[in-house]
Amino acid sequence: MRLYTKSGDKGQTSVIGGRLDKDDIRVEAYGTIDELNSFVGKAICELDQKMFKDIIDDLEKIQHELFDCGSELSNIKKEREHKLTEEPITYMENKIDDFIEEAPALERFILPGGSDAASTIHICRTVARRAERMIVTLMKTEEGVSPIPLKYVNRLSDYFFAVARVINARLEIPDVEYIRSAKVFRGSNKKKKEE
Amino acid sequence: MRLYTKSGDKGQTSVIGGRLDKDDIRVEAYGTIDELNSFVGKAICELDQKMFKDIIDDLEKIQHELFDCGSELSNIKKEREHKLTEEPITYMENKIDDFIEEAPALERFILPGGSDAASTIHICRTVARRAERMIVTLMKTEEGVSPIPLKYVNRLSDYFFAVARVINARLEIPDVEYIRSAKVFRGSNKKKKEE
Amino acid sequence: MRLYTKSGDKGQTSVIGGRLDKDDIRVEAYGTIDELNSFVGKAICELDQKMFKDIIDDLEKIQHELFDCGSELSNIKKEREHKLTEEPITYMENKIDDFIEEAPALERFILPGGSDAASTIHICRTVARRAERMIVTLMKTEEGVSPIPLKYVNRLSDYFFAVARVINARLEIPDVEYIRSAKVFRGSNKKKKEE
Ligand code: B12
Ligand code: B12
Ligand code: B12
Ligand SMILES: C[C@H]1O[C@@H](n2cnc3c(N)ncnc32)[C@H](O)[C@@H]1O
Ligand SMILES: C[C@H]1O[C@@H](n2cnc3c(N)ncnc32)[C@H](O)[C@@H]1O
Ligand SMILES: C[C@H]1O[C@@H](n2cnc3c(N)ncnc32)[C@H](O)[C@@H]1O
Ligand SMILES: [Mg+2]
Ligand SMILES: [Mg+2]
Ligand SMILES: [Mg+2]
Repeated sequence: MRLYTKSGDKGQTSVIGGRLDKDDIRVEAYGTIDELNSFVGKAICELDQKMFKDIIDDLEKIQHELFDCGSELSNIKKEREHKLTEEPITYMENKIDDFIEEAPALERFILPGGSDAASTIHICRTVARRAERMIVTLMKTEEGVSPIPLKYVNRLSDYFFAVARVINARLEIPDVEYIRSAKVFRGSNKKKKEE
Repeated sequence: MRLYTKSGDKGQTSVIGGRLDKDDIRVEAYGTIDELNSFVGKAICELDQKMFKDIIDDLEKIQHELFDCGSELSNIKKEREHKLTEEPITYMENKIDDFIEEAPALERFILPGGSDAASTIHICRTVARRAERMIVTLMKTEEGVSPIPLKYVNRLSDYFFAVARVINARLEIPDVEYIRSAKVFRGSNKKKKEE
Repeated sequence: MRLYTKSGDKGQTSVIGGRLDKDDIRVEAYGTIDELNSFVGKAICELDQKMFKDIIDDLEKIQHELFDCGSELSNIKKEREHKLTEEPITYMENKIDDFIEEAPALERFILPGGSDAASTIHICRTVARRAERMIVTLMKTEEGVSPIPLKYVNRLSDYFFAVARVINARLEIPDVEYIRSAKVFRGSNKKKKEE
């Protein structure tokens, strides 16, 4: 196989159903999803396979979903297949609720960091948000973009926040609060815990 | 607590004092500060706690300051609190001068890398500069943005350069010079060292 | 030496042959090359020096070339030196062909990840593609930009893909296929292998 086709040496590239400039906002959007996917791959390598089996499985599921997301965004055909459904979003919402229970209650912003893997997950969180901003620009520019990818990456960044906290909690590394933070998180889970 | 509010699923989000599109240059700016903060968290994890206590303390100080910076940038109220002052800038300037003394003298560009932590600090350096470019766009677009965040991230990227060199110096890993570099750094610290 | 010159505190900066706004697309382009270079530095640290000597040598060669690339992009003089030639592109093409032979045959997309170093190389791959998008915008905006940097980073991202696969192959970590992938890679190397 010859991997390199040289067909992109002049600045244009192929998408599903046509060709676009490489700096088209659509290419920016799924290119950033690809970047995010690479950071998720890194995070998986940094997690202990026993202690974090559930999370590793989730993250690999997410890697496949990020490809589904990229497939939708790289498709400019009139009839597009919708590979990305609501299922993974609901799945993440349930997981987030569980993780918020598992980690210590939270009222103020925390410094991103703690352990190697949690730091990388915080990087994933912020790169997901960068991708989200590009999808928003794409949707303002182009018609016919499915609303699911935007919803998906929005929830994904909250999932990453919750998972980063759980990783540090299991490793018994306390998250450090931002010292000049107000109480920004509404509705503490303290009461629920007492029930 | 329910972490996800779903209120951003349509592409708008809340800032201090209002709501904006997620791809607003203001959101880009503090979103990139958040990304930078995550890389700083990563760098801290990679530093030996004994050999680099001074640097770890600095980096954690910086993490708090990056939140101060984000607070300013995410505020669109008429009367804005100024959390970020000149103090951390002066602090970094003194540290840079010390670090330049501690590391070997420098005339040519060096390859970013060497040790794990120094590499991550070089990533911090370049992500800080990415954030800086966005703050410049924001200031050209919007009125009333404080000049301090721009000055702060500008100095911060020089701080990261100086600190990356010191990390490698303490680990006795020599920085590799860019082979086709001219003498780009003006005013060697050689003389000063002889004094 | 005083590292910080404060001359950029107002948002402008010097390039070879003049001054530009820091958010000029030209500065974006070589700033992203600098970011990429930092991730390459990180990847080098994560590779075993014996098992991957050939690859480490390549990556250090690439770090110098990324500076050559940055030199060209940061030059706005009428007469510009051309530090970056076709040689490194041909060099990478030969290496890619060899690496494609060394790694298992490929028909479908793979999840970026596997080992620490391969993950970081996938990050390099996607950051190279981000830089590529900016160079495309620069070339659409400005006249007189050499066509070599674009061609170079295009091939570089394919080089990174090939090298990530070889790293995992040598470590005997199988790449995971994207489960809902069609057969996207054309011309399997199976036949060639049988010859
Ligand atoms: C989108 C895309 C990407 C996206 C991935 C998609 C995503 N979901 O995020 C991103 C940006 C991540 C990507 C990355 C890469 N890509 Co790409 N990518 C494409 C692109 C544009 C579309 C591929 C695709 O998903 N097609 C959709 C499939 C489903 O459609 P299809 O092939 O037409 O299949 C349909 C039917 O034919 C049928 N079908 C297909 N197969 C079969 C089989 C059977 C038996 C049946 C019955 C039906 C059937 O099913 C589908 C129905 O929907 C192609 C170019 C192109 N236009 O094809 C390049 C392409 C596949 N990529 C290519 C390359 C080189 C890469 C990278 C290595 C680049 C790099 N250096 O980073 C990486 C590899 C990433 C990885 N991890 O493996 C090359 C491969 C060259 C080659 N030698 O074959 C291509 C061909 C582009 C090119 N240069 O010409 N890519
Ligand atoms: C800016 C912002 C961010 C910035 C952080 C700020 C920065 N400095 O860089 C960034 C982008 C990093 C961020 C990230 C996140 N954020 Co945020 N963020 C906000 C935002 C817009 C403002 C928060 C803020 O700083 N307010 C300023 C404070 C100081 O103002 P205030 O609360 O009005 O407080 C004033 C007074 O009330 C008084 N006060 C406050 N508390 C108290 C207490 C007492 C006793 C007294 C006397 C006075 C007092 O003091 C202040 C005077 O200035 C809020 C939404 C909003 N509009 O509030 C969301 C918000 C807090 N974020 C939210 C979330 C979910 C997150 C993330 C998890 C998102 C993600 N997936 O990444 C992360 C978490 C980051 C972390 N590391 O912890 C949610 C929380 C939802 C919830 N369940 O409560 C909010 C509410 C947004 C939403 N979805 O509605 N965020
Ligand atoms: C482009 C550039 C970069 C690029 C690097 C270039 C690339 N290839 O990608 C990037 C963005 C990566 C960069 C990064 C940094 N840079 Co810079 N950079 C520059 C810039 C604009 C040009 C440097 C250059 O390559 N000049 C081209 C050379 C070849 O030209 P020249 O010096 O005129 O040399 C010519 C002749 O004079 C002759 N020549 C030169 N030396 C000699 C010697 C002899 C004996 C002879 C005969 C001839 C000769 O040969 C050349 C002919 O082409 C300068 C500012 C400026 N305008 O000079 C800042 C500058 C060198 N950078 C600076 C700084 C601080 C940095 C960073 C530390 C910033 C940061 N915080 O990240 C990093 C360090 C990076 C590293 N890894 O070492 C400062 C240095 C300040 C100081 N104290 O000296 C400068 C001066 C900018 C400033 N603030 O004023 N930089
Ligand atoms: C928690 C806070 O983060 C900000 N926010 C919401 N979405 C994004 C994004 N994609 N990128 C950066 N910042 C974002 C909003 O200001 C929100 O209130
Ligand atoms: C050292 C050189 O780096 C460039 N430079 C200065 N600020 C930035 C930034 N935010 N991003 C990228 N490059 C920058 C200028 O060209 C300067 O001269
Ligand atoms: C493999 C696929 O990747 C996409 N592609 C090509 N170049 C880039 C880039 N610089 N950034 C993001 N995506 C790109 C095209 O859609 C190509 O077909
Ligand atoms: Mg959100
Ligand atoms: Mg500067
Ligand atoms: Mg390409």
